[in-house]
Amino acid sequence: MQFFFEPKGIALVGASGSPTKGGYRILKNLRTGFEGGIYPVNPFYDDIEGLTCYPSVLNVPDPVDLAIVFVPAPAVPRVIRECAERRIPGVMIESAGFAETGEKGRALQEELKQINRETGIRLWGPNCMGLVDAIRKHVFSFVVEKIWAQGVLAGNVSLVVQSGFLAAGFLIDVMSHGTMGISKACSIGNKVDVDECDLLEYLIPDPDTGAIGLYLESIPNGRRFMDLCRRSTKPIVVLKGGKSAVGAEAAMSHTASLAGNGALVRNALVQAGVVEAHDFNQMMDLCRALARFPEVPEASRGRVAILTPSGGAGIVSADFVDEVGLELAGLSEATRTTLKAIYPKWMPPSNPIDIWPAVELNGSEAYLTAFRAVCADPNVDAVLFHFFAVGFLGEDLFPLAEAVRCAGKPVFCWVMGWSEMVSKVRMAAHELGIPVFRELYRATECMAAVLKRKRRVEMEARQ
Amino acid sequence: MQFFFEPKGIALVGASGSPTKGGYRILKNLRTGFEGGIYPVNPFYDDIEGLTCYPSVLNVPDPVDLAIVFVPAPAVPRVIRECAERRIPGVMIESAGFAETGEKGRALQEELKQINRETGIRLWGPNCMGLVDAIRKHVFSFVVEKIWAQGVLAGNVSLVVQSGFLAAGFLIDVMSHGTMGISKACSIGNKVDVDECDLLEYLIPDPDTGAIGLYLESIPNGRRFMDLCRRSTKPIVVLKGGKSAVGAEAAMSHTASLAGNGALVRNALVQAGVVEAHDFNQMMDLCRALARFPEVPEASRGRVAILTPSGGAGIVSADFVDEVGLELAGLSEATRTTLKAIYPKWMPPSNPIDIWPAVELNGSEAYLTAFRAVCADPNVDAVLFHFFAVGFLGEDLFPLAEAVRCAGKPVFCWVMGWSEMVSKVRMAAHELGIPVFRELYRATECMAAVLKRKRRVEMEARQ
Repeated sequence: MQFFFEPKGIALVGASGSPTKGGYRILKNLRTGFEGGIYPVNPFYDDIEGLTCYPSVLNVPDPVDLAIVFVPAPAVPRVIRECAERRIPGVMIESAGFAETGEKGRALQEELKQINRETGIRLWGPNCMGLVDAIRKHVFSFVVEKIWAQGVLAGNVSLVVQSGFLAAGFLIDVMSHGTMGISKACSIGNKVDVDECDLLEYLIPDPDTGAIGLYLESIPNGRRFMDLCRRSTKPIVVLKGGKSAVGAEAAMSHTASLAGNGALVRNALVQAGVVEAHDFNQMMDLCRALARFPEVPEASRGRVAILTPSGGAGIVSADFVDEVGLELAGLSEATRTTLKAIYPKWMPPSNPIDIWPAVELNGSEAYLTAFRAVCADPNVDAVLFHFFAVGFLGEDLFPLAEAVRCAGKPVFCWVMGWSEMVSKVRMAAHELGIPVFRELYRATECMAAVLKRKRRVEMEARQ
Repeated sequence: MQFFFEPKGIALVGASGSPTKGGYRILKNLRTGFEGGIYPVNPFYDDIEGLTCYPSVLNVPDPVDLAIVFVPAPAVPRVIRECAERRIPGVMIESAGFAETGEKGRALQEELKQINRETGIRLWGPNCMGLVDAIRKHVFSFVVEKIWAQGVLAGNVSLVVQSGFLAAGFLIDVMSHGTMGISKACSIGNKVDVDECDLLEYLIPDPDTGAIGLYLESIPNGRRFMDLCRRSTKPIVVLKGGKSAVGAEAAMSHTASLAGNGALVRNALVQAGVVEAHDFNQMMDLCRALARFPEVPEASRGRVAILTPSGGAGIVSADFVDEVGLELAGLSEATRTTLKAIYPKWMPPSNPIDIWPAVELNGSEAYLTAFRAVCADPNVDAVLFHFFAVGFLGEDLFPLAEAVRCAGKPVFCWVMGWSEMVSKVRMAAHELGIPVFRELYRATECMAAVLKRKRRVEMEARQ
């Protein structure tokens, strides 16, 4: 699988000089980030943008170990045969028009499978958007080149997405919002050969990957998949499309996937230690939370401290903590003493920690004092704090981040307030390693995923 | 209650000339929007910012029918008695330090209750942030004056919030993000007299209010509340804090509310036709969806058409439609014919409508063609469309909005893509009357709230 991720040279079959074509965008994307050899293939050009263009992969010089194919579907089998002949080990087929398009397309896809079986050449796709590796700056995809302008936000979440458009949408959305860093985003389409199992095998030991999120419409090799998940040292989050009968029907026409069996799949995923996602952004949120806190530094009983400037938000957080199966931490004597010193006299220290009266009394420093106390509290396993970006707290998250680093505990932030400041807080918190959320329940849910995973890993270690 | 919302003159007791004080901010906010008489009261000033300052409400000239009180808690009872003596019908007490602060505070609050009983003077608060009326530009609150700079986004959602800080946070958040217009936001705090029932009685017939959202920690007068909800002609959304045992305990110390009994409350709310919210932003999302589509123009069976550029997102939408108890519309013959004309030959028309292959074939006009077809389809009760703000669809929502207007059907939009474009799409869609969401499930959930409400109202009409 390595030639897909770290190829030495790439033949681009279906390269184009016309800016409206996908074959042009792929070339542009390759040239912006990929440092190996790039060999456009198209019999109608001698050169494209200063690069020599070859009539066939058979004419492409070495080193070449990956072909990206973007030609009309009926021409694909011939191209693949030539790649096999040329001893190129892997091909990424980004063209559509296969099993998702009816009888003829299904036959074409069957032919690809046949070539794969005959020659052993590895095939990625078809009907996919390829691969983006934000760390290596590899964009093996016809995704709009604008992706570079925004700055490819590198991080340690890797994604495997069965739907091409979604893969691109996800990437663009999370990168441009600046709240999640991507390692690799793999769009695998119809999965004629390379599938989620192959990618898991590559991504689980990948040092650039901290957590793996998968959007799948089918899991044809269920046993292998569950086995890989069970043995994974990294958190895995799965969003399964087509769980309902109507959804399954739609999946059939989309990537020709046999979906359905929602309850069965759900059960198997839980058994394999997979975190099941329910929605798209939620999947990303779970991934970035788990990628941020994948380790198990100490025994944890899921005891949460809530720090808030709003009593009301504290109450609802307490409800959520209960709902997701965590508990409110009983604060230590030391923390109580610290709180008493900053609280007004009438206020008994309690969790959720409503910090507003203390801020009124002692200024915004009170928030930091309380924050440090709960971070250091041995009765606290994780901290959920609310950031009301309305000006009174200052915009400075640095001391909070410092306290988080010292404590080594999972800390989660819910933010609301002025639109512009909210954006800034989100980006700053992300940079500082504090997962930040716009939805309070989401923050709690992600916290539960992190704390419950910890306990699972510990239980296994003890066995 | 009218004097709280449309006072002729306001005495501000505890007005201050010092910019760091709440009594200064209230004055600033009053002067920016309120057009009636403003009478600062504070024995230590002769005038504040050019306004004559009075030593007591007893000295304030007419017309004055509302007093806003922001003095230390122990001084409040005396002020209220003077207001009663002065025959001011209503007082908004924004000071804290009452039942939420222990023994002494509870006694003070009891004293307020006693004065209310003795004199009939209506008391709003204490421990609250007062009232913001975005349509009349009344800000009877110490919320930061910056709220004006951002432009107070007026709309038809009215909020009743038991937590002061939350009320301000909500306002600032939704207004500055530009995706929900507020009519009135009422922060009612400890509810010594004026409570959610009084406000419902005022807001239900209020012509500026299309939907009402309430965050409550207690509903002491449950029977009256449920009765008002049952008879309401407007959608009502309730988020109840303190449903769990731990949350109820926190609520006790926050606004001295007896919360708890989650299941019981939930049941009663459903019976009364209230939409129960689960989280803060979700409450806002439900409110703006219901405020946008509160009417019942025709029989509806909850048949949804999904329009998407991503097959994957279509599949997950279908799963969600099933999950929330709606159904996928069977498209009419006319719609099928329209789709066949823009689809590639191999693609059978189906719902969810995966429009990408048609866009590849016919350009982005295909999206609009399909959109118009489902809007006009008699088999379709509501439309959920996905907007991928990645550049290919054009940024123009106008023709879509026009189609929505013609169809008179509820239409909902899920948006993902480039950060900046997403913001623009959200604001534009809001302006054009299309509720837009960042979370796909949320969009579906809000659609269900609208469609199910329709059916409820119809059922009642038939009886």
